[in-house]
Amino acid sequence: MKQLEKLISQIASRMNAILFTQGFNADSYIRKCIPLDKMNKSYAFYGITSFHPLGFYFRHSNLAGSYFLGKCAVENSILYKSDIRGDELKTRGDIFHNQGSDIVLYDDEVIRIKGSFLIKTLVHNYSHNPENLEEFLILSTVSMHYANIHGSPTDGCFLGPFSTVDLTTLHNCVVGAYAYLQTGELSNKRIEPGQIRIRNGDIFDFSYRFPSKDLNNYIAFEHGEKPHGVFVDFTEDRKKDFQKLFAVVYLKPPIKTSECASINRYAVVKGETHVGKNVLVAQRAYLENAWLGDGTNAQENCYIINSRLEGNNVTAHGAKIIHAQLENKVFVGFNSFLQGSSNCPLTIGKESIIMPHAIIDLKEPLDIPPKHLVWGLIRNRKDVEKHSILLEELSLFDGELSRGLMRFKGSGSAFVNAFKDRIEHILETNGAYFDGSKNKGHAQMGRDISFNIIQPYPRGPLEGIYPTIAIHS
Amino acid sequence: MKQLEKLISQIASRMNAILFTQGFNADSYIRKCIPLDKMNKSYAFYGITSFHPLGFYFRHSNLAGSYFLGKCAVENSILYKSDIRGDELKTRGDIFHNQGSDIVLYDDEVIRIKGSFLIKTLVHNYSHNPENLEEFLILSTVSMHYANIHGSPTDGCFLGPFSTVDLTTLHNCVVGAYAYLQTGELSNKRIEPGQIRIRNGDIFDFSYRFPSKDLNNYIAFEHGEKPHGVFVDFTEDRKKDFQKLFAVVYLKPPIKTSECASINRYAVVKGETHVGKNVLVAQRAYLENAWLGDGTNAQENCYIINSRLEGNNVTAHGAKIIHAQLENKVFVGFNSFLQGSSNCPLTIGKESIIMPHAIIDLKEPLDIPPKHLVWGLIRNRKDVEKHSILLEELSLFDGELSRGLMRFKGSGSAFVNAFKDRIEHILETNGAYFDGSKNKGHAQMGRDISFNIIQPYPRGPLEGIYPTIAIHS
Repeated sequence: MKQLEKLISQIASRMNAILFTQGFNADSYIRKCIPLDKMNKSYAFYGITSFHPLGFYFRHSNLAGSYFLGKCAVENSILYKSDIRGDELKTRGDIFHNQGSDIVLYDDEVIRIKGSFLIKTLVHNYSHNPENLEEFLILSTVSMHYANIHGSPTDGCFLGPFSTVDLTTLHNCVVGAYAYLQTGELSNKRIEPGQIRIRNGDIFDFSYRFPSKDLNNYIAFEHGEKPHGVFVDFTEDRKKDFQKLFAVVYLKPPIKTSECASINRYAVVKGETHVGKNVLVAQRAYLENAWLGDGTNAQENCYIINSRLEGNNVTAHGAKIIHAQLENKVFVGFNSFLQGSSNCPLTIGKESIIMPHAIIDLKEPLDIPPKHLVWGLIRNRKDVEKHSILLEELSLFDGELSRGLMRFKGSGSAFVNAFKDRIEHILETNGAYFDGSKNKGHAQMGRDISFNIIQPYPRGPLEGIYPTIAIHS
Repeated sequence: MKQLEKLISQIASRMNAILFTQGFNADSYIRKCIPLDKMNKSYAFYGITSFHPLGFYFRHSNLAGSYFLGKCAVENSILYKSDIRGDELKTRGDIFHNQGSDIVLYDDEVIRIKGSFLIKTLVHNYSHNPENLEEFLILSTVSMHYANIHGSPTDGCFLGPFSTVDLTTLHNCVVGAYAYLQTGELSNKRIEPGQIRIRNGDIFDFSYRFPSKDLNNYIAFEHGEKPHGVFVDFTEDRKKDFQKLFAVVYLKPPIKTSECASINRYAVVKGETHVGKNVLVAQRAYLENAWLGDGTNAQENCYIINSRLEGNNVTAHGAKIIHAQLENKVFVGFNSFLQGSSNCPLTIGKESIIMPHAIIDLKEPLDIPPKHLVWGLIRNRKDVEKHSILLEELSLFDGELSRGLMRFKGSGSAFVNAFKDRIEHILETNGAYFDGSKNKGHAQMGRDISFNIIQPYPRGPLEGIYPTIAIHS
């Protein structure tokens, strides 16, 4: 394992050098999280379809458990059980709209990961950085368990567990556990754990921060310790179900689906589960007694248990929904944790938006009314008041608003419209509106994927390192 | 499947053009043998170890079920469930002895397969062609079920089912079913089914031909028909056991072995089976109630059933041993078929050589005495007389000898010594003589292999074709 250990040291020492000015020592965070003995026990795989441009390049890396769709280059990096999903990358000739300009792409976009270490991280969507539209670059970045790097080129960054960086270009930043950032650009900043921030220049600025005491119960991550808390226990408890999927080469579909829906063969499907038309169940999604109405999508690392989702529901990457009834078009954002129980069920009215990184952890039954925006930590009916607002009310608002720990500044309508547009776009991209011929999306295109399995050197100095591999059409 | 069908047509039409002068129409033989609907249902895999130089290149090909160890390039070819085993290729700087000259290798040798179609064929060993030692070339060649291409560069050739070309360079030849050739070089010839020929210039020349009537019972292959007969039924009956191995990614060793023996994870091991020290069980070997003494090897596509092999036994590629007791150092050559039964067991005395493509199919119990050379078709004690000779007797012989349908010409001692040297070399290469530190061979090196699984495009015009893949260390 000499080469693999050397690679880890190289990544960690660069990280320390880069984040020195932030007073951040990456080493003490990373070391405990590296399952060195497991790194040549999991395999990696990449998908081949007739829909996505094919182009993979892997060099001097460990790729345990990763998957790829679309062009991707990985060099001197470790992707431990990460999903690198390139099926929304831009292609040559595409037009990118930016601040009134139309920019034409020179080439197919490539996700390029260099000198980085991503643990159970999801990388998805495409680069929104007009400086380099052909490359979604993740450079000298360390990212912990269940972080989402979503359309966000990062260099010299450390991302804590369950954090999300969304449509943002990050440079030399430390992002705390369960922080969520959607701010366009950010440099040389340290973001505290549980900080939620959605900002669009001077147009709007939403912020909320989870009280540390409350957050630590769900996810805590300190020097020299592994991440721990409710979120970690929850995923650990369900790990075995995934192991079964990885043990076999071919797998029969667990349940029947219509021709225009797809269940990825690396998704867990248990109990009495129903999957409607135009439904996408992505890889590493977990369904148990889940009723998914037409046009719903269950994205990577999401869990839907003992719940019914009426239709056109979005369950974003890493979201968890337990003992809940969601009416039509309810959106549940990244890494949200919605935990009802049989005694304390949760219902959410139609078209409500559960913001990314919201926690609803019930001690009593709860109904969230329709068309509300919901954030922060909710345990009972009383909490709802300080952690939600009617979308229409926010739309009519312009100025400064505070509710509980939430602060909002700017145009409410711009904020609400941005969210609504994005939800429409997600539904469309995922194939919710497929009519048998038009509006094809991931639900339809995800039905036919060949998965190729790759493994590292089993012994010797290169143990754990993958050979150099280049694949193209 | 458009591209795949086109590729098949292209290969077949070149074959017809090349073999036109032989009056041979490849098309009518090939078409029936192509399981087009299965060609994107089996996967291909290649092995990665710390012992073999890594270098694979696959382009515009279908590789269903193939495996590779050592450098290999495949272009515009179809390898259907074939084993391309490059773990005995020469490497850069190696010295090749040829007719008194020492030739130094410029580069690592590569198996290069171009414009060819190999069905369940084993390609092994290295090129003995001094014109091009760095390349083991298989060009515009069609090879049928269970053929062996062993150290034999071929261009413009058609090889029938269960045929073997061994240490021979072939150019524009048609080799009939179950023919065996070891003649150094051969051009523009048609070899009849069941023809056995071992010739070394003017030094010795061994030939035998199975009577058609007898051979057809075991393997028949006519225009527009699939190969059929006892050999085909035998392998078909055991196909399902292999399918189980291919369904899973990882497999626990079926039985315990010593540290210096290896059972390939794609070998079938059933019943009460024992594997001694320094034993190699290669991929696609089939063991059922098999007792393999120290230093024994069971090569690709061999079957050992209800049998005991004392030690240092060679069971060559494709050989079948059923209800037999083999004393020490008995050699069983390529595609031999040794079928005893519980009522009619077979015993073979120590150091006897069962020649490649021998058939022993018993209707009564039979003892083959030690130190004999055995060929042809044996059904009972009487047949042994006309189909064997004491090695010592042959060694003392020089001139022309005929026994039954066998003809021998030349130096008996040169012939016997060539066989004995080769058997020693095979035992050595396979690790039979490993003493804990020296004389490592495949038995020891085969313990740690990572298998990478690759698959073709699942849909669209490229359905069944593999992407272009380049892999190196």
